[in-house]
Amino acid sequence: MTHFRPVALDHASRLINHGPTVLVTSTDGTRRNIMAAAWSMPVEFTPPRIAIVIDKHTLTRELMTASGVFGVCIPCAASLDLAYALGNCSGKVIDKFARYGIVSVAGDALGVPLIEAPCVAWMECKLIREPHSEDAYDTCFGEVVRAAADARVFNEGHWQFDDSNTALHTIHHLGAGNFVRASGIIKASPL
Amino acid sequence: MTHFRPVALDHASRLINHGPTVLVTSTDGTRRNIMAAAWSMPVEFTPPRIAIVIDKHTLTRELMTASGVFGVCIPCAASLDLAYALGNCSGKVIDKFARYGIVSVAGDALGVPLIEAPCVAWMECKLIREPHSEDAYDTCFGEVVRAAADARVFNEGHWQFDDSNTALHTIHHLGAGNFVRASGIIKASPL
Repeated sequence: MTHFRPVALDHASRLINHGPTVLVTSTDGTRRNIMAAAWSMPVEFTPPRIAIVIDKHTLTRELMTASGVFGVCIPCAASLDLAYALGNCSGKVIDKFARYGIVSVAGDALGVPLIEAPCVAWMECKLIREPHSEDAYDTCFGEVVRAAADARVFNEGHWQFDDSNTALHTIHHLGAGNFVRASGIIKASPL
Repeated sequence: MTHFRPVALDHASRLINHGPTVLVTSTDGTRRNIMAAAWSMPVEFTPPRIAIVIDKHTLTRELMTASGVFGVCIPCAASLDLAYALGNCSGKVIDKFARYGIVSVAGDALGVPLIEAPCVAWMECKLIREPHSEDAYDTCFGEVVRAAADARVFNEGHWQFDDSNTALHTIHHLGAGNFVRASGIIKASPL
């Protein structure tokens, strides 16, 4: 049984507001790929738009440019080793889905590969073509058209990281294979 | 005595690789401002370049466009309430440095306001003018020309978050004033 539930589009930016490492999926109908990306951010709440850095020499970049769509899946502490492995091999050399036994489904809206377990959220995105940003900064803009998250850790537009769901906490890459886990929510007080 | 030490430019991207909330500083020589920004990311290691979302209606955007430079200071758990307050008032209405008693120094390279305590790192950045990205996505690109970090928590190009320095851990905004603290480093294992 899936724990995933739809995320309202005006809450989609919250999924990456705190800077987690994400997985980017792509397909041109024949080939498919998945890679890890540490560099992404929202750029707009409504419509929900994001920016993500995808090196122009990757298969992901080739497939998302060809198809005009991509998926963003958010790994968690339980998929730490997988996320790191996906960032250290090339889809030009191996089929990473097959190599790592990753089960994906085609998104209802755009057909991009989406992963639930062992991820905690996904987004289907349309690439907004911006050739200059893509070329000069490897920065690709996208609009989220459909999103879902694991209700055990994201509810009503909010991440709920606590001691009951540590394996589902998002991971944030410090570099060199070291990550921090999003944990211990602290609430700001008015000054 | 300052705990800040220079950060090599090829390590500068590490400062925001994991998605912390940052403070953006700016001045046109007469006016000055500081605001919180949850949406930033590196886009290039060498030269170190970043992208950051700054709403076009803010004083910060006005000042950084006028001066061509901006500062990025990284708050921490000890400055959580300050960071949140800085994101919820406008520099067009009050001088936030005066209101909150923030001590800054002018950066040696670009003259931007830089804050050490209660922050844990800073970067002096040149704005790379990209009128289309700025206009369409409020996304501003910048190149880091000088950086420093608190050696109690960042050393040799790596964040070192542990139980001895929890007040200095970076903060990551989930939304609505709730943050997670970068804590509990976990290292990925090869699959």
